[in-house]
Amino acid sequence: MCDVCGCGDKNHVSLDVHQRLLSHNDRQAAHLRSHFRADGVTVINLMGSPGSGKTALLEATAKALGGRRRLSAVSGDLATAHDADRLAHVGIVAEAITTGTACHLDADMIHHALHGDLADAVHASDYFFIENVGNLVCPAIYDLGQTANVVALSVTEGVDKPLKYPVMFKNADLVLLTKIDLLPHLPGVTLEAISNALSRVMPRPRSVSLSATSGDGLATWLDWLDTLRSASNG
Amino acid sequence: MCDVCGCGDKNHVSLDVHQRLLSHNDRQAAHLRSHFRADGVTVINLMGSPGSGKTALLEATAKALGGRRRLSAVSGDLATAHDADRLAHVGIVAEAITTGTACHLDADMIHHALHGDLADAVHASDYFFIENVGNLVCPAIYDLGQTANVVALSVTEGVDKPLKYPVMFKNADLVLLTKIDLLPHLPGVTLEAISNALSRVMPRPRSVSLSATSGDGLATWLDWLDTLRSASNG
Repeated sequence: MCDVCGCGDKNHVSLDVHQRLLSHNDRQAAHLRSHFRADGVTVINLMGSPGSGKTALLEATAKALGGRRRLSAVSGDLATAHDADRLAHVGIVAEAITTGTACHLDADMIHHALHGDLADAVHASDYFFIENVGNLVCPAIYDLGQTANVVALSVTEGVDKPLKYPVMFKNADLVLLTKIDLLPHLPGVTLEAISNALSRVMPRPRSVSLSATSGDGLATWLDWLDTLRSASNG
Repeated sequence: MCDVCGCGDKNHVSLDVHQRLLSHNDRQAAHLRSHFRADGVTVINLMGSPGSGKTALLEATAKALGGRRRLSAVSGDLATAHDADRLAHVGIVAEAITTGTACHLDADMIHHALHGDLADAVHASDYFFIENVGNLVCPAIYDLGQTANVVALSVTEGVDKPLKYPVMFKNADLVLLTKIDLLPHLPGVTLEAISNALSRVMPRPRSVSLSATSGDGLATWLDWLDTLRSASNG
């Protein structure tokens, strides 16, 4: 229905523009992916609503890994470098991508970031995390050359978000159910109900429930990352 | 930076398309606004992240009003009519607008909805609520003919969202800080810190903190609505 955003199909003119630009994005993403593969870098496109706990997850991940893996990241936001600053504070080589008014990252933005100060660190990374703009709609359709799409879904968002935002969850390789330490205070929210919703939209339902605050579930997430890294470098 | 979404400025072709379509949207919104004014309907464009508590707020609003005002609504989501069903259950005449892949509502969608089954109810309403697609970026720039923009911001989203998504908050007439019953379980989150962030981006900072669960703050929100209604019909 939308005739302006990247999600539209109403207006043929903007649809043409849309298809042409997505096609450009796909070519740029393929270029990025070939570099990531050649360098043996596992790349996570981390998406989710604003406040779903993406940055807290990456902070907890870095602390849990304790220097055993080389980590780099870009953090996308309309404004501020808050998230990149937080990631740098826990030892992740990180840079902010401020999008101004744009609602998602695209492959050109990643490409540009990788030709700046971040280049060497990403080149030598085990994991490169792309923390996308907080948005459960637009980032879903932009390939960034990632190894996997991971979506953070906070239990505070309720149980039916996968059904209401199916494009995002359909394209996810893994969904992280975050902030589970708050579950006792959320009447009507259960992990079972969220998992049931995920199973209705994800072709291969896969989720890990965790809390960056308590540390519950982090080991399972690290195992998943490790398996992904082995598979993508195998 | 974005050359596809409605937020873009990189590509002149898509920028031209974007400007033309926003211009069309503004004309349609002006048309809607003239009808709303003639009918004495106060219209709230309710925006916020996925899971920020927009539907729960409207449910609590209907219950607190107890039939003293005539209420109607549209609920925007990519898929499902869950929210409209919930609103209908508490006595709001409501209809779902499913956007498919679009990340926001536009004036054409509202106009279309008002020429269907919802027409008479909206015409006779005191308040018509437009529950926008859960998204803290794209809905901000689309005029829907509303009397006021209201943004729901859950305290679970942390303290710095106004700084990271300034366009949304700059265009808000009121920000509702929702789910304050969870504050005791959110270390590092205070209403003061959120208010401080709002004061840095809102031209006229105005917020009400509330909990749809406990009912705290609802009376202040209803007072604000009543004042808005009196002013817009004055």
